[in-house]
Amino acid sequence: MKLADIAQSLNGELIGDGTIEIANIASLENATTTDISLILERKFIGLAAQSKAIAFITTAPMDDLPNQVVVSNGRKVMAQCIELLHPTEPITQAIHSSAVIHPEAQIANPVMIGPNVVVGKGCSIGRDTVIHANTVLVENVVIGERCVLHTGVKLGADGFGYYEEEGKWKHVPHIGRVVIGNDVEIGANSCIDRGCLGDTVIEDGVIMDNLVHVAHNCRIGTNSAIAGLTAISGSVTIGSNVQVGGQAGFSNHLKVGDGSIVMAKSGVTKSFPPNSIVSGFPARPHAEQQRKEAALRQMIRKKTKAQ
Amino acid sequence: MKLADIAQSLNGELIGDGTIEIANIASLENATTTDISLILERKFIGLAAQSKAIAFITTAPMDDLPNQVVVSNGRKVMAQCIELLHPTEPITQAIHSSAVIHPEAQIANPVMIGPNVVVGKGCSIGRDTVIHANTVLVENVVIGERCVLHTGVKLGADGFGYYEEEGKWKHVPHIGRVVIGNDVEIGANSCIDRGCLGDTVIEDGVIMDNLVHVAHNCRIGTNSAIAGLTAISGSVTIGSNVQVGGQAGFSNHLKVGDGSIVMAKSGVTKSFPPNSIVSGFPARPHAEQQRKEAALRQMIRKKTKAQ
Amino acid sequence: MKLADIAQSLNGELIGDGTIEIANIASLENATTTDISLILERKFIGLAAQSKAIAFITTAPMDDLPNQVVVSNGRKVMAQCIELLHPTEPITQAIHSSAVIHPEAQIANPVMIGPNVVVGKGCSIGRDTVIHANTVLVENVVIGERCVLHTGVKLGADGFGYYEEEGKWKHVPHIGRVVIGNDVEIGANSCIDRGCLGDTVIEDGVIMDNLVHVAHNCRIGTNSAIAGLTAISGSVTIGSNVQVGGQAGFSNHLKVGDGSIVMAKSGVTKSFPPNSIVSGFPARPHAEQQRKEAALRQMIRKKTKAQ
Repeated sequence: MKLADIAQSLNGELIGDGTIEIANIASLENATTTDISLILERKFIGLAAQSKAIAFITTAPMDDLPNQVVVSNGRKVMAQCIELLHPTEPITQAIHSSAVIHPEAQIANPVMIGPNVVVGKGCSIGRDTVIHANTVLVENVVIGERCVLHTGVKLGADGFGYYEEEGKWKHVPHIGRVVIGNDVEIGANSCIDRGCLGDTVIEDGVIMDNLVHVAHNCRIGTNSAIAGLTAISGSVTIGSNVQVGGQAGFSNHLKVGDGSIVMAKSGVTKSFPPNSIVSGFPARPHAEQQRKEAALRQMIRKKTKAQ
Repeated sequence: MKLADIAQSLNGELIGDGTIEIANIASLENATTTDISLILERKFIGLAAQSKAIAFITTAPMDDLPNQVVVSNGRKVMAQCIELLHPTEPITQAIHSSAVIHPEAQIANPVMIGPNVVVGKGCSIGRDTVIHANTVLVENVVIGERCVLHTGVKLGADGFGYYEEEGKWKHVPHIGRVVIGNDVEIGANSCIDRGCLGDTVIEDGVIMDNLVHVAHNCRIGTNSAIAGLTAISGSVTIGSNVQVGGQAGFSNHLKVGDGSIVMAKSGVTKSFPPNSIVSGFPARPHAEQQRKEAALRQMIRKKTKAQ
Repeated sequence: MKLADIAQSLNGELIGDGTIEIANIASLENATTTDISLILERKFIGLAAQSKAIAFITTAPMDDLPNQVVVSNGRKVMAQCIELLHPTEPITQAIHSSAVIHPEAQIANPVMIGPNVVVGKGCSIGRDTVIHANTVLVENVVIGERCVLHTGVKLGADGFGYYEEEGKWKHVPHIGRVVIGNDVEIGANSCIDRGCLGDTVIEDGVIMDNLVHVAHNCRIGTNSAIAGLTAISGSVTIGSNVQVGGQAGFSNHLKVGDGSIVMAKSGVTKSFPPNSIVSGFPARPHAEQQRKEAALRQMIRKKTKAQ
């Protein structure tokens, strides 16, 4: 593919020689002399100088690089450029022979279901959804369209619900569902438990990283993003467009409003209104935490000086 | 089923019309006009008013609800009521054809073993135990009766034990077992490593949430409860009736006494006697932590005011 | 095997009766009257006194124990002694019939591949590597020689990379690889995502515990050790011989220099030079953290006294 064609496809400004043939897209370190690479932040200019790439996608013209395609939205263009040079195969009906699918499960067409996937009783899967190897839908799991469940995801196990009787734990049977909307992506080895009576709901467009735990009866609103190793306890409601950092934790029965940001490693123990930015454990508004931290630092400095 | 029959089965007090036919049990939000629902805490009275349910299980008579069954132990009754309307199928011998079971493994009858389960050499499984899909018992795993291993559980892998030689890590071979008692429940994708020389022991009645890590040579006492994403390092001994919150961590070779509570996100770095309540990192008695927190808050407030 | 032979094999000093027949090696608690056990630290002398073992491996002569083999490197000798009495079977070509291997994957000989393992397109596996049951290599995963992937490991899933468009998350396609060196060991249910353009690289001799998350484009240097439930965000570079405690977290795009120690539950938010020892969240040099803690404790004590 010629560099000029790439520039045109990406709606970018061409600088340099448009007739160069581009074989592939690669990272700055790995690029060979027939590759295009990306430099989305000026701080990587040093790496670019050492790169063997023959052309670069940039977000502003850079002086020392010969052949550039200058674009406005770097990450989007990266995705487009990868797609251009490595077109994703269209989804066609492909259910691996080793998958174990309950006879009454409703499977749309086309879907892709990988090896050793298990789809239990009462499950349904919408069209254009991809389920990677060794993922399990235990029971009563409803999945929308265009979802991606990465390898090892576990949906629909009974939640951690018990009552005590004579010093022993007795399990509360779970009859609810896991309901996953459209365009949801769930990371490897993440687990979402079914509701006890009601449903555990993951709304449209939610993205979830690896090894995330979502307990019974939770609801996560549209387009929210949950980073790795986060633990969400039972009956938590997270609004739409919420961003949750890695290893955050949530006590049960609380609500986090739309558009909020929960920073990494936060421990959320109470509800927060929309557009909150919270951090720490117990989680509090981030600005307040920073004031406390600053006051504390000052006190310690003074104390240390005084000694 | 008539409401009066339900009231009688649950040993509850009937208020209203006992002749109503109840089709199902459902959450307040999901209930239709033939369903019974539950309102176990008065704060949910608002939701109950909006619910379409025709009858309610309550823990005290509530003025505005027409048909009620008033009971004393809400969660127990919820479990009983689910069981009444959705009876659990009795466990019958059912080993899925895709399960891979070592020829010398000892499997009691009845047990239920799901698809893609792997049961390795030297394993045994007690009667009435249920093992969900894609769970693996690597080697030398002994499981008692009436246990539930949820989907993706991994038991009996070698632990994280090494010695250093010339700057390289050398693995210490593991020959111990994982020994799981009776009535134990282990959450999805949790991992319990086998002992190095001795055993990793999970005693009767322990319940464990999703994505929990138990390292080699640990012992967890009867009826203890471990919440999600907790990490327990090697040779830790947790007593009986201990409750551990989510994302807690334990350094190796320590003991936590019977009846203790380890709060969520605690980092336990030393042993604690029975009936301790600990929080924070490093974990300390919770009352002490709260005093410190209060003193700190006061100092910061004073400081901030002074400025 | 005679105790004298064991002493000779382990290059240890024999104390007591070398003619005793040793049947097995066992922990102090589990040993029977024909077993040898270990007491590697003097604090376990009480347990040793109660043990039924007939002989002990010690790191210094102990007065009250009859038959001893005194050695210098306890953990190494434990490994050797286990190997002596429970020789590991040599690795022979053994690919379980239920494994699903892409026809173009390159599999060396000998390797051991357990049940329900999935090896996708573009993968290769070096000789003497062992892959335990239900592990998945999604795509473009290159594994060196003498590695051990424990049960449930997930390598090569697409990373958590998105751009936002009209309030929705759009996935960036991933075309990079996961490249694992030689002598690497990865714990049960750990996940390592493939690079986006470049590679996610785990260098020779790295050891990783259970339920660890390594995001796209990370690099972990030779002989580093990562404990359980640690979360490493995208494009993090960890040097050689680094030790990371359990439940640590790393923000993206940072570097931790060779020989550093990142203590358990640390939250690393910026880069650190070689040989750093860091703790806390945000992680700072451990000595500095301890000084702050001490100053804080003193202020609180004074305050509490004053009241």
